[in-house]
This record gives sequence, structure tokens and C-alpha cells, in this order.
Amino acid sequence: MKFLKASDPGFERAFAAIVDDRRESDEDVTRDVASILADVRNRGDKALVQLTARFDQYTLDTPESWRVGPEDFAAAYAGLEPGLRDALDLAAQRIEAYHRAQLPEDRDYTDDTGMRLGAKWLPVDAAGLYVPGGRAAYPSSLLMNAIPARVAGVERIVAVSPTPGGKLNPLVLAAAHVAGIDTLWRIGGAQAIAALAYGTATIPRVDVVTGPGNAWVAEAKRQLYGVVGIDMVAGPSEILVIADGSNDPDWIAADLLSQAEHDPSSQSILITDDAAFAMQVEDRVDVQSAMLSTSKVAQASWKDHGVIILVEQIEDAVPLANRLAAEHVELAVDDPDALFAGLRHAGSVFLGRTTPEAVGDYLAGPNHVLPTGRRARFSSGLSVLDFMKRTSFLSASEAALAAVGPAGIALANAEGLPAHARSIELRLPK
Amino acid sequence: MKFLKASDPGFERAFAAIVDDRRESDEDVTRDVASILADVRNRGDKALVQLTARFDQYTLDTPESWRVGPEDFAAAYAGLEPGLRDALDLAAQRIEAYHRAQLPEDRDYTDDTGMRLGAKWLPVDAAGLYVPGGRAAYPSSLLMNAIPARVAGVERIVAVSPTPGGKLNPLVLAAAHVAGIDTLWRIGGAQAIAALAYGTATIPRVDVVTGPGNAWVAEAKRQLYGVVGIDMVAGPSEILVIADGSNDPDWIAADLLSQAEHDPSSQSILITDDAAFAMQVEDRVDVQSAMLSTSKVAQASWKDHGVIILVEQIEDAVPLANRLAAEHVELAVDDPDALFAGLRHAGSVFLGRTTPEAVGDYLAGPNHVLPTGRRARFSSGLSVLDFMKRTSFLSASEAALAAVGPAGIALANAEGLPAHARSIELRLPK
Repeated sequence: MKFLKASDPGFERAFAAIVDDRRESDEDVTRDVASILADVRNRGDKALVQLTARFDQYTLDTPESWRVGPEDFAAAYAGLEPGLRDALDLAAQRIEAYHRAQLPEDRDYTDDTGMRLGAKWLPVDAAGLYVPGGRAAYPSSLLMNAIPARVAGVERIVAVSPTPGGKLNPLVLAAAHVAGIDTLWRIGGAQAIAALAYGTATIPRVDVVTGPGNAWVAEAKRQLYGVVGIDMVAGPSEILVIADGSNDPDWIAADLLSQAEHDPSSQSILITDDAAFAMQVEDRVDVQSAMLSTSKVAQASWKDHGVIILVEQIEDAVPLANRLAAEHVELAVDDPDALFAGLRHAGSVFLGRTTPEAVGDYLAGPNHVLPTGRRARFSSGLSVLDFMKRTSFLSASEAALAAVGPAGIALANAEGLPAHARSIELRLPK
Repeated sequence: MKFLKASDPGFERAFAAIVDDRRESDEDVTRDVASILADVRNRGDKALVQLTARFDQYTLDTPESWRVGPEDFAAAYAGLEPGLRDALDLAAQRIEAYHRAQLPEDRDYTDDTGMRLGAKWLPVDAAGLYVPGGRAAYPSSLLMNAIPARVAGVERIVAVSPTPGGKLNPLVLAAAHVAGIDTLWRIGGAQAIAALAYGTATIPRVDVVTGPGNAWVAEAKRQLYGVVGIDMVAGPSEILVIADGSNDPDWIAADLLSQAEHDPSSQSILITDDAAFAMQVEDRVDVQSAMLSTSKVAQASWKDHGVIILVEQIEDAVPLANRLAAEHVELAVDDPDALFAGLRHAGSVFLGRTTPEAVGDYLAGPNHVLPTGRRARFSSGLSVLDFMKRTSFLSASEAALAAVGPAGIALANAEGLPAHARSIELRLPK
């Protein structure tokens, strides 16, 4: 953990280093991924069988071995304890309500020249969702990816997930039931992304691929961007808590640890204007983290990437927050709106002392797939728009063409494009 | 040019080949681009000076040699002939009006549990626009990229453009004046994209890079996606004209050529239900293309990539159009809305016989930066949203947290994330 004081002479340098530290894997996976993508593109199912045997110790042989379907999802859901079923249902309802209000409106109007103009939104035909195996196999992620696709109106929604040694996660299957997934293909890694993007004899191609994954999955999505639509390039998760001294240090420590327990490369940052409070939080982080079943991960993250920054006044946190452009920002103060008004770059903001970030991870409603690694400067959390596209349209009446056509001809000629000019000219009144 | 009849037994195969033909450069520019990006990242301005001398035969030495500013833009605009000035102004006004209506609305509401939820849209801080030199140096592209950024509220909008041998294009400078560009940096190629993404001592970093370019520029944008926001991966341009036999063949021929004259890799496709009309159009393409100053390009494109498809009834064009997912689709029929209703995948649609695509290129209002290479399946034309990002937010009252918190705790525990559960639990009423 680093402790920085904004009034120290070395602060700017130390803070800039934190802003520039991307915490992203330096592993050179680019070449490995490129060769896996080419293999799946060229050999299709055969490549999937071999790569799945190699990476997941799982054999794709019979048709049933490839997929898990709605009956299995329903059975997994039925097998959950009722409290968990209700929790999944409540989460799904709330996520759906929030995303339904994101549906964009079509436009269709006629301007004063008589030109009809507009834009029509439509869902993509098919979406594929990556669901990690292992540590990050979260049913909540499946809901957060599938529900916006379903709300967008996507007809075919499939998931892919590695099932190492054949093991299926019943919570993920239950979430697939709640989310309305059609099929879960038992493949993972870069090869699964390639199968979704290119299609194989068994796996039909999709139009958009979303969902979290490891460095191989992220790199595969990056390389296939343009062949399919993707949600974003995601890196390690992060939280920035801006808290004054009137908070319970235990609450804030728990918030910092809720990020730290995700992954050793996660980052938790506290900015406060109260030195005594900062020390209390630090102490509570140590006490609480020791008791967690996730203590190893949480302690590694806090040790390597945790930061506490002491500022003169709490308002001084805002420009620092804008430079950090963090995925999650908590504003644990009496008047969070005053700080929020100055916040320009953040994935999602949690206002007030009784709004822990974790409630947003599960069931507040907004999406938990958010820009990381300072990308909130230019990108947004997952939404229904990621599963839709807009077609613009126009219709020129003869009068409208007569009004704007001559200027179009002038520009076409100036650009040296005579056929452009001619296609307008021929249609003007003689 | 290929002529296909939908009723022929070999049609499906031939049509599938057209759908799958991406017409994109096979040149292996990946490695070259990667090394240019690394060079600019490591050596900054020094790399730019060397690469610009090498690729553009232009020397960056004095501070003035690097940039063109607003005074120069204003002078270029003043020097244009009045008709062209008016045409640029009309185009800018119409583009601005169309894009202003795209501005998204913020949301801020409280649901029945007392949870406050919402989303706030903000512009990025800075945008960089690529403006090609040479054949594709189009002032209209500068307007189409800069105006959405300005409408979005971006404070700093800069352009980059190679100026081979020091030559500046006065039309582009005039368009920069109309579009409200702050600075045009005289750099191009992959090195310009790298400078915008990473920043150098001279060139400040931006958050989003848009604009057309050659294969090096496109690959640089692809490789830097995630470091900056980008508009899209753009390939060669294309038009699909769906026309019945009641059109003037000269008009339709001009429309096909307006696409063909862009680039030898452009593609123009006609689908019609009238064999005699198809032959008339083919004839008029030959006659008109011979007379164009752009004939060499237009004829090469038509010869290598032009397609005429004869269908039984004009409605049969719609499923083919959906598979082609073309950048531009003209519906030259009496009732274009009937066909448009079935169209699922298209960048922009031009309705009716008096709506040539070229009017959309310049000044109808919708953006002319559109998805190519079948990417209309999942992506949209450039809009103000490409220069903005959305921050979601929430605020849980104690009552709201009491209502949804327990379900959140159940999910967190099920996912094996105890600090998540604890951060909610601590805040619940005892």
C-alpha cells in the first residue's frame, strides 16, 4: 500500500505514476492468440476439439458433449436454494428495468427543404457471451451481459464457457436460465472467441461478443474487433473511494477490500481529507482482510496496488478522480452531488455513505461491466446499445434535391469526384 | 463485373463468395505498424520528425513547421470562391442540425425501493481527427468527423494530416475553419495516430481518434483501440442499389459510378428485377465511366468488384441486402418504405428515385462515416455518441439498501466474495 500526501513535494510525480500504471499483463499473448484464431478459422471444430482437450482436459465427442441447453439451465435453477433463486430473480428484474429505459428512440422527420431524415435502431441478430471458468465464474456477470442483449431484442443469445475437467458451475447454469440464454457451448479461451466470430460447423457465428475473460480472451476480442462487435478491452478492476472523516472506517475498509478480493491486480484507492481517519481505515483493512476467505488475493492486491491519498479538503479529490478515471467511484460524504457535479470521468458512481459499490455489482440495476484502466475517459459501461446498431436514412423530394443539390455538386466537383456530381445533376429539374 | 441470376443453380455459391469477399488489404502491415507505434511511444517527437521526413518528404523543424492554426484556416476559407464557401456552410449547418438531435438525455430517477438511479453523458476532453493526404483528402470528411465532436461538446478538437512535400490542401483548411478545428498537425500515417494516442512533447494526447485513412492508419487505430477510443475499423466503401425497371438507367449508372470512383477496391452492386433494365444500366456505366476524369479508378472498381444481380421480384432483394449489410443502400422504387421495413442491416439508406447517395456524402445531414465490409450487422455510422461517454450512478437510501441488500449478500456469498457481502451487511440496520 502506498500512502501519499497531496501537500508533499513529490506528490505529483507519485500520483502520475499511479495514473500511468496500467496493471495490465505484459505477457506476450499476442502471437499465441493469433495462432489459435487462425487454427479455429482454418480447421473449425477439429481445432476446438484439440484445444479444449489441451487447455480444459475436456473431450468434445458426442453432440451432447458440446452444449448445455435450456433444460439443464432450468434444472440447475430448480436445484438452487430458494433464497438464492429469489436473489437471482430480483437481480434480473432490477437489471432489466434499468436497461429497458436505455432503449433508444428512432427518428423520422422532414426538414424545411422537404428532406426526410431519420435513424432506425435494430438489434444485432445474434450475441455470444463469454463466461469465465475458475475464480471469476460469476453468475452476476452472465446476467449483466445477457439481459441487455435480451432487452435490445437480440433473437439468439448464446454463451461459451470452459468446463475444465467437465465441471459445470450450477450457479452459472441457473443464471443462464434466468437470463434466457439459448445454449451454452463448452469451450473457452481464445478458441471460443474465434468460434463465435468466425463460426464453425457446430458453432454458428454471432455478431457481437461480450463478457469478461483472462488475458487470452481479452486479446482474442481485441484481435477480432471488426470481424465481430465487442464490448470493450477490459483490464483489472478498480475502485476509488472518496470519503471524509465522518464515515465508519469499517465500512470504507470493507469497500476497499470488496475490490481487492477480486484479483491480485485489482486496485483500491482511498482519498480522504482526514489523516486520523486514513489511519483507522488502514488498520481496519488489515484486521478485516485477515479474516476473509479471500484474504490471500485481497491482501496481495492491497499490498501491491492499494493507495491512500490525503488531501487538504475533500473537494481536492475531484481533479485527482478525473485523472484516475476509475471504473468505480464512491462518494462517501454528506453532499455527494456537489462532488459528482465536478466528476468528468468515471465508469459508475456510488453516491452517499449507504451506497456500497457491491450493491451495484449485483442488483442495483446499472451494468457492472465498466471501463477500466482509465478508459472511462472515452468509453462507457455495457448497455443495450452494445447489442444494437443504427441505420440512418434520408429521402429527398424533388424540391429538397433542388434546394441542396447544387451545393452538393459544387463540393463533389471541388473534391474531384465527377460521378458524385453527375448523380445529383441528372436528377435536378432541367 | 459479375452478372448473377438468382434463379441460376450456382447463385447461392456465387453470392456467398461476394458476401465473404472482404476486399481488404492482405498486405502484412501489422508488424510495420507495431514498430512505428513503439517508435513514437519511445522517442516521441524525434520519431515523428524522422518518419515524416521519410514518408512525406517534409521537414518538421521550426515550431511553425509542425502546425497550421485558425488564422490559416480562416485565410483559406476567405480565399475560396463564394459558391464553394456557401456550399461548405450549408453542409456544416445541415450536418450540425442532424447531429444535434442525436444528443442523448441524462437519466436521474428514484425507484419504488427509494434507490436513486441514473446515467450522465459527458463529452470526452479531446478528439483527434485523421485527414488523409492525396486522393482521399476530402473536406467533407473533415466536416463529418469534426461537427459531431463539436456538437458533443468536446473542448479540444485537433486534426492530423500528412502534407507530402509541404503541400497543404486549401479546401481542407477551409473546412477546418468551418468545422471549428483548433490545430492541424502536419503529420500522417500510423505515426500520427500514435502521437494522438500516446502524446509527445509537442502533440498533446487525445481521448478519441476518428477519421478515414489508408491500411496503415486503419491498422494503427486497431492496434491502439483501448489506449484511445476509435470510431471503427473502416474498409473499402460500397453501395447496393435496389432498383426496378422504372428508373432512368443513366441515373442508376451514375450512382454505381459515384461509389466506384472512390477507390479501385470500392464495390457497386445493383439488384433489379428487370433484365432489360440491367443491360441498359450496364451499357450506361460503360458510356459514362469512359467520360469521367476518374475513369481509371471507376473502371477498375466496376470491372473487379461490380455486380449486377437479377431477381424474380424486387422484394427478393431484401434478404440478399441483409446478407450484404452494405454501407450504402439505395431503394429506387415507388414504395421504398415497403422494402426498408424488411431491411435489417445497412449503414445508411437512401429512399426513392430522387435520392442519390452522393447527396448524403455531402450535406443531407446524416454522417457519411459508415460501417463497411458487412459491419453494419453490428455497428453504426459515426455520431455524437462516439465523442461522449456515459457514467452510471446510484444512491441507496437506508430503506433501499434494506430492501435489496440481503439479496446482494446472498449473491456475494454464493460467488465466494465475502468482502462484497460484508460491505453491504455492515450498513444494514442492526
